[in-house]
Amino acid sequence: MGASYRSPHHLPESSQMQTDQGRLGILLPGLGAVASTFIAGVIASRQGLADPVGSLTETGHLDGGPMRDALGLASLDDLVFGGWDPYRVTALDAAQRAGVLDAALLEKLGPELLEIKAMPAVFDRDWVPALTDTDNVKEGASHLELADALRADVNAFKEENHLDRVVAVWTGSTEAYREPGAAHESLAAFEAGLEASDPSISPSQVYAYALVREGVPVANGSPNLMFDFPAMHELVALTGTPVAGRDFKTGQTLVKTALAPMLAARLLGVNGWFSTNILGNLDGLVLNEEDNFKSKEVTKGGVLGSILDGETHPELYGDIDHLVRINYYPPKGDDKEGWDNIDLFGWLGYPMQLKVNFLCRDSVLAAPIVLDLARLLDFAARRGESGIVDWLGFYFKEPMALDGEETVHHLFEQETRLRQALLAPK
Amino acid sequence: MGASYRSPHHLPESSQMQTDQGRLGILLPGLGAVASTFIAGVIASRQGLADPVGSLTETGHLDGGPMRDALGLASLDDLVFGGWDPYRVTALDAAQRAGVLDAALLEKLGPELLEIKAMPAVFDRDWVPALTDTDNVKEGASHLELADALRADVNAFKEENHLDRVVAVWTGSTEAYREPGAAHESLAAFEAGLEASDPSISPSQVYAYALVREGVPVANGSPNLMFDFPAMHELVALTGTPVAGRDFKTGQTLVKTALAPMLAARLLGVNGWFSTNILGNLDGLVLNEEDNFKSKEVTKGGVLGSILDGETHPELYGDIDHLVRINYYPPKGDDKEGWDNIDLFGWLGYPMQLKVNFLCRDSVLAAPIVLDLARLLDFAARRGESGIVDWLGFYFKEPMALDGEETVHHLFEQETRLRQALLAPK
Amino acid sequence: MGASYRSPHHLPESSQMQTDQGRLGILLPGLGAVASTFIAGVIASRQGLADPVGSLTETGHLDGGPMRDALGLASLDDLVFGGWDPYRVTALDAAQRAGVLDAALLEKLGPELLEIKAMPAVFDRDWVPALTDTDNVKEGASHLELADALRADVNAFKEENHLDRVVAVWTGSTEAYREPGAAHESLAAFEAGLEASDPSISPSQVYAYALVREGVPVANGSPNLMFDFPAMHELVALTGTPVAGRDFKTGQTLVKTALAPMLAARLLGVNGWFSTNILGNLDGLVLNEEDNFKSKEVTKGGVLGSILDGETHPELYGDIDHLVRINYYPPKGDDKEGWDNIDLFGWLGYPMQLKVNFLCRDSVLAAPIVLDLARLLDFAARRGESGIVDWLGFYFKEPMALDGEETVHHLFEQETRLRQALLAPK
Amino acid sequence: MGASYRSPHHLPESSQMQTDQGRLGILLPGLGAVASTFIAGVIASRQGLADPVGSLTETGHLDGGPMRDALGLASLDDLVFGGWDPYRVTALDAAQRAGVLDAALLEKLGPELLEIKAMPAVFDRDWVPALTDTDNVKEGASHLELADALRADVNAFKEENHLDRVVAVWTGSTEAYREPGAAHESLAAFEAGLEASDPSISPSQVYAYALVREGVPVANGSPNLMFDFPAMHELVALTGTPVAGRDFKTGQTLVKTALAPMLAARLLGVNGWFSTNILGNLDGLVLNEEDNFKSKEVTKGGVLGSILDGETHPELYGDIDHLVRINYYPPKGDDKEGWDNIDLFGWLGYPMQLKVNFLCRDSVLAAPIVLDLARLLDFAARRGESGIVDWLGFYFKEPMALDGEETVHHLFEQETRLRQALLAPK
Repeated sequence: MGASYRSPHHLPESSQMQTDQGRLGILLPGLGAVASTFIAGVIASRQGLADPVGSLTETGHLDGGPMRDALGLASLDDLVFGGWDPYRVTALDAAQRAGVLDAALLEKLGPELLEIKAMPAVFDRDWVPALTDTDNVKEGASHLELADALRADVNAFKEENHLDRVVAVWTGSTEAYREPGAAHESLAAFEAGLEASDPSISPSQVYAYALVREGVPVANGSPNLMFDFPAMHELVALTGTPVAGRDFKTGQTLVKTALAPMLAARLLGVNGWFSTNILGNLDGLVLNEEDNFKSKEVTKGGVLGSILDGETHPELYGDIDHLVRINYYPPKGDDKEGWDNIDLFGWLGYPMQLKVNFLCRDSVLAAPIVLDLARLLDFAARRGESGIVDWLGFYFKEPMALDGEETVHHLFEQETRLRQALLAPK
Repeated sequence: MGASYRSPHHLPESSQMQTDQGRLGILLPGLGAVASTFIAGVIASRQGLADPVGSLTETGHLDGGPMRDALGLASLDDLVFGGWDPYRVTALDAAQRAGVLDAALLEKLGPELLEIKAMPAVFDRDWVPALTDTDNVKEGASHLELADALRADVNAFKEENHLDRVVAVWTGSTEAYREPGAAHESLAAFEAGLEASDPSISPSQVYAYALVREGVPVANGSPNLMFDFPAMHELVALTGTPVAGRDFKTGQTLVKTALAPMLAARLLGVNGWFSTNILGNLDGLVLNEEDNFKSKEVTKGGVLGSILDGETHPELYGDIDHLVRINYYPPKGDDKEGWDNIDLFGWLGYPMQLKVNFLCRDSVLAAPIVLDLARLLDFAARRGESGIVDWLGFYFKEPMALDGEETVHHLFEQETRLRQALLAPK
Repeated sequence: MGASYRSPHHLPESSQMQTDQGRLGILLPGLGAVASTFIAGVIASRQGLADPVGSLTETGHLDGGPMRDALGLASLDDLVFGGWDPYRVTALDAAQRAGVLDAALLEKLGPELLEIKAMPAVFDRDWVPALTDTDNVKEGASHLELADALRADVNAFKEENHLDRVVAVWTGSTEAYREPGAAHESLAAFEAGLEASDPSISPSQVYAYALVREGVPVANGSPNLMFDFPAMHELVALTGTPVAGRDFKTGQTLVKTALAPMLAARLLGVNGWFSTNILGNLDGLVLNEEDNFKSKEVTKGGVLGSILDGETHPELYGDIDHLVRINYYPPKGDDKEGWDNIDLFGWLGYPMQLKVNFLCRDSVLAAPIVLDLARLLDFAARRGESGIVDWLGFYFKEPMALDGEETVHHLFEQETRLRQALLAPK
Repeated sequence: MGASYRSPHHLPESSQMQTDQGRLGILLPGLGAVASTFIAGVIASRQGLADPVGSLTETGHLDGGPMRDALGLASLDDLVFGGWDPYRVTALDAAQRAGVLDAALLEKLGPELLEIKAMPAVFDRDWVPALTDTDNVKEGASHLELADALRADVNAFKEENHLDRVVAVWTGSTEAYREPGAAHESLAAFEAGLEASDPSISPSQVYAYALVREGVPVANGSPNLMFDFPAMHELVALTGTPVAGRDFKTGQTLVKTALAPMLAARLLGVNGWFSTNILGNLDGLVLNEEDNFKSKEVTKGGVLGSILDGETHPELYGDIDHLVRINYYPPKGDDKEGWDNIDLFGWLGYPMQLKVNFLCRDSVLAAPIVLDLARLLDFAARRGESGIVDWLGFYFKEPMALDGEETVHHLFEQETRLRQALLAPK
């Protein structure tokens, strides 16, 4: 699970550590609920109107002091936002549509949010059938032309905003699930595919190509296969760009990767784990399509295996019925609700049950992750890391692992790895 | 929180590590649901009738192999059981009354269980008002005489069963909550108190005194103040006996110490945590008394503070309403059910809720802990440890900490400490 | 259960049916969360800003048309509000403190709400210890003087507002539970008690006396013993005043009286019903006091008996453990959350479980009941009814029943009775 | 919803009421978990080993006395069981496979259960793909020959067991959903279709035809279209046979038809109702197939519409998102667990949530319904009723209604109708 590779630049070289001076641009492919909640929240925090709760980089501690200071992370005041969206929206429109934040707060942030206008997106309904009537989509003779247009956007964004550095976080929709094909086998094949507008190349892969070509560190908040194929591995290595993914670990999976370790720690057996989700935002609508759900199913389904180890303990974890269901249910809006039923057993095999009902909010949980990933990818780049940043696995449902290494899903192992990596000598 | 002291013998001295050869006696003050489920389970496991699920020492791994072998722990076949109870019961009676295990299984184990007869207990209804009509209580002119009678029991048990070593695990009732008094201030005062039958000395403290005087390592599965006062600290140091406690961490608190770390890892804020429990066994009946509940409240209530750190993060954890309720509700029998409601908040303070319903079984969760504690205390004694065995905190609601050290409640930190201690050079 | 008596005026006399023309005053002893949510909601509904959801009298149908028209009920536009409170507040203050309604809505209603000022209350902390620092309490030489002051308030309210009719709904706090005493035995004894300021007479009884003396129909939304004793029975009969009570049936009890009938309909057995509540408003704070909780316990606890009939079906309902717990838990604010666990059994005694988690809002559920009771009591008075209006039992946790009749808790029997009574010839 | 028609024989003619003397045969197409739990339970009850909890006809009261006596229902001792199944099983095998009842109880009932052997079934995997390796299926040159074979079975069963009367209750699997076709339009077309083995005629329809041809009253416990088409309406009328259906109302739907009336009674609005089910028995496996689930979806989905009336109250019930999900989840075995989330709203539109978790047992809830339906259909036949017995709607998810009448889902209206019909003059 989790495509993986090792980049020659992977080990941080302390001499290269750059300062955090200067302005950091954050580019967001997908200016929807998550992106607008993130942007609005940063602006509100700058103005002292609200707290950026849930962000380690803003409120966490490391080595006895604020993590922000310990690592020299970009300050909130130095962040500049941009993004693409297939709908012609501003960040204010997006926030209002999302219905996550209070009208009263948005009113105060309105002027700044209005300034952030979605650039025309690379988009193809073939990959996201649920999105109709898009009105802000790039035209191009080939996928390659579209990629070039994105690269031009990146450079214009950088120049117009006098930015020192840029990172990107995919906050767009989940694309349909499709196995990589011949075009994904090598960088040469991929570039030929871009030129030929190969239909097996998805829009998110066009973004991945364009951004990495420009050396922009990228995080993938969706289950899309943005980097998880040989062609992109090559490009990442070639350009020395740090990347991280995939799929933000927010509601139900977050809880799962805390409770499964509890069962493993106590060696309580598990017969089944049933997880159902109801959500009513655009994300839910997109996932209502079978092929798009399939992408999500892959990232949500693999979580237990590495924590509840059926090989070492076949009698406890060798036969777990793990079902994950996602349901588009409009009454919830951006609220997301998970219900889990875990059938466990203890001493002499006696059965017990654990049920968890998580009434959470998708964008509220994802927004601080966007902030952390943007800053930490920038940090990684500044200290010379490239390739898969596996110590960011803490933030992902299906963390990308290095070649030959196992994917870690255990939340507290991930946390330990994150903290250790951050404390490694620069 | 957590009385603590350091014994001069604390550091293991590798040369002293004794072999695991020979028979290990396990003495259980309180031959009720937990003790009988534990004993029956070990016998069933020996006979291949069922699996000792939930026991790290039996099914866990360490350093790539079974923990049992890695540490040279006493084998199931070498365990011998004894116990005291204020009711004249055999282990079979106790198991049948408890109603935890299937009649069919008990029938097969009957002959062996019938052989284990409760020795007359030291008991005083003043401390456990809910237990009436006891018929198996020691008479004695003073507390000291009662302690001497217990010591004689220990020695007889050892001799009659040709045991090499003995450990004890308190599986009796929760006593009323009372603060330690003058008699608890020093060993001399305590022994004078025993002689004078000081009413501030509880029966569990008489057991603690007698067992430690005999050098028997003891674990305390209840919230009782067995060791947590200066007099006993002295005695433990004097005799070089390892002790561990207190209050088995089983249902709701187990889940709490896995979920609170999740919230802390992601720096999600908490406004309140409401925990209610319904249970119908003798334990529930005992806790229905206000003073006895008070004891439990103390061990259950302190859990969050050390995980959700309100000093470092006052804005997140500075003002948590943490309510714990226990209700005696006979329909549940030995089943124990917890319901938790957690009011948390994320990005910009937006509220979310997490609810957990744990349908568990008290004795089924506690039995493997009895097995692990018996073996690991024996292991600690054999490798020369004495005093508070703080690395056993993994098993307790209110772990005893060493002097000057903070109590660790975080389940995964406890797990790490346990594993590290076990791997320390012998 | 449920004190009961029959008034000589009880049967409606059709010739007496008065018109609904004119203005109806609604007096509310207790200007807190429920009262302010009710008043604000009526005003908002008048202005078309929101819908009075949950009110049968406003949105329900009867006999093929709107109930309002079928019965000639007072229109929203003809309602005028007044009230007493031990704190010097306006309806706007009360609504803002309660935190139930959005600030944006309250802003629009502000001018009208500001006009409604709490009259000084009859109050005694002895009966509601949780309310401290009251600043709007009537002084009087005796209980009787206080009652007279209330009567003067009623008349002034009527006159100043040019009202044709007045009704009252108790929306104040739950008083401590105390059994009625000698002073409650007869009207004469009660009036002597008022004069002597007998401490066994509670403030809510002083209100009841004053209002009924003035012929004002009264509903009792709390568990207080306002009418449930012989002295008040006499007065009600003497004055021909309709009264109804007690304790609004809102959250958990509402659900209970729908689910218990389901079990009864299918003759499924019940071993236990555990109900716990968490609430954080003033109501919760008041009920946190043991004596005040006792009042609530009485009204909440009696619900099952008349639905799950243990006399006819001892094998199914003869031994139900019914536990009700209320917990003051500030994080919930005016939200009220119930969790129920029902242990039932079916065919051959096999056990099953039903669990219900109701995330409701106290004032949002109670406000439409206030509206309905005010209008329907007025309707009852106009068509000449007096004494206990037992067909209003639909709205109450512990409905007052007529002498010799059984209290009906079954929600759907209550609904049928309500509808039949409304359709009875006028 | 609910095909409906009126039979000329529908009105009971009191003179025809036959006595309950004699033996009543109960034929069960489908000898699985429900049928074997039902049979074993009746035998256990006869022997005083257990109580037939949940059966109105056995434990219910009517008119002040036991319903059984009031109506002169067949006594348990007079019941004789038979059935068909595509697997060669006895009732004992079926009960053991189902895993519903305790081994100890089954052991006692073994001899009687062993005597009940499944007759070869009419079965076609095309309609139930999940059932493989069947070994007890009738062979026949045409559907008509199969129907004739069933009729011969009925007569042989009657004769061999010296039965006075026979009724049947479908306890077999849910068939794939298919709309009725031309063959279902008239009795003539249907009989031609049977002769031509028309693939649009399902096995359950072959049973329906054979049983009704023999004048055997039939109840349909599944969502299959057994009677709900014109051809069968004709046959029922022609033969004067009472029939009832469809789909036993057991777990989640039972609760739904009690809670929805509560919301309707109080006019609380509903935005959405999400229902998910996890079940692990054969029923779950069958419903895991999309076409078979479709049948169930139809009967489960229509429930709310007639209770929460969106036409009269568009502002409350005009736009409800009602989602029903069923998941095959083997760890539950015959246990069936439902989780419901209801998004409701009250006063001024403020949202609330109600969540229900029902840990039930499919067969334990269905078995008493089989008993009641068998006896009450027999009662209906004896008092001369024929055609759709609409007052049995209390027992069904999708009650068949008479022509021109609306389907009633409201549990308490159904209960009232049942009781009124039973009390009607005979």
